[in-house]
Amino acid sequence: MQKAPIDTIFPQGEPNPYSKFFTGQTYLTMLSEKEHIFNAPIGNVTFEPGARTHWHKHGGGQILLVLNGEGRYQEKGKEIRVLQKGEIVRIAPGVIHWHGAAPNSWFVHLSLETNAGQNGKTDWLDPVADSEYK
Amino acid sequence: MQKAPIDTIFPQGEPNPYSKFFTGQTYLTMLSEKEHIFNAPIGNVTFEPGARTHWHKHGGGQILLVLNGEGRYQEKGKEIRVLQKGEIVRIAPGVIHWHGAAPNSWFVHLSLETNAGQNGKTDWLDPVADSEYK
Repeated sequence: MQKAPIDTIFPQGEPNPYSKFFTGQTYLTMLSEKEHIFNAPIGNVTFEPGARTHWHKHGGGQILLVLNGEGRYQEKGKEIRVLQKGEIVRIAPGVIHWHGAAPNSWFVHLSLETNAGQNGKTDWLDPVADSEYK
Repeated sequence: MQKAPIDTIFPQGEPNPYSKFFTGQTYLTMLSEKEHIFNAPIGNVTFEPGARTHWHKHGGGQILLVLNGEGRYQEKGKEIRVLQKGEIVRIAPGVIHWHGAAPNSWFVHLSLETNAGQNGKTDWLDPVADSEYK
């Protein structure tokens, strides 16, 4: 495990236990677990340069809050969006997308699964090919 | 308006439009508004030293994610808790509490209103007296 060279604000945590749904090395700290009092799973996710999620969608949607580094976000059929510290991304329920680090930067974001009490299902799809990631 | 001397990560925003429910000067940026797709109102709140909320409670609960500075948190009848960058506070529905800055430090936290689609009501109560804040 490599310590991030940028401030992760919240703990960097351990190598991501969901790494089979990611390309490259990522780290996860769950700040608020999935349960039925708050219905708000929140994780701090740290990506090494070039690391990214597979394509996926959330039944209840997701909000990303960018804490540090430079990242990438793309919805299926749209242009890649560059993400910087202080930006947020609101991903509506059912929208197929991926997110991750820039090729040459570490990247840290909070992830909130919205409407988790009503529909907390995540569907994981194909990896983001190098030709898609660029 | 005074610019925070510490990194607020997300924009510091404007003087808090809900200032009548706060003691001292605070600033608010809404990162995700209250609506019925995400049901996840998220604000970035910046407190000048000594500033704090009034006592209050949330019908659906609240999660605080501490981004910078040193803060205070107290639930009715319990001891005051010191908050530092990287800590989180999960406040169950209906729990009477307050939060704010330490006497000599600016303080920045994200606030997420949980279960906002089911019960987004906030009840504001008395100010936190200087004798309670200390």
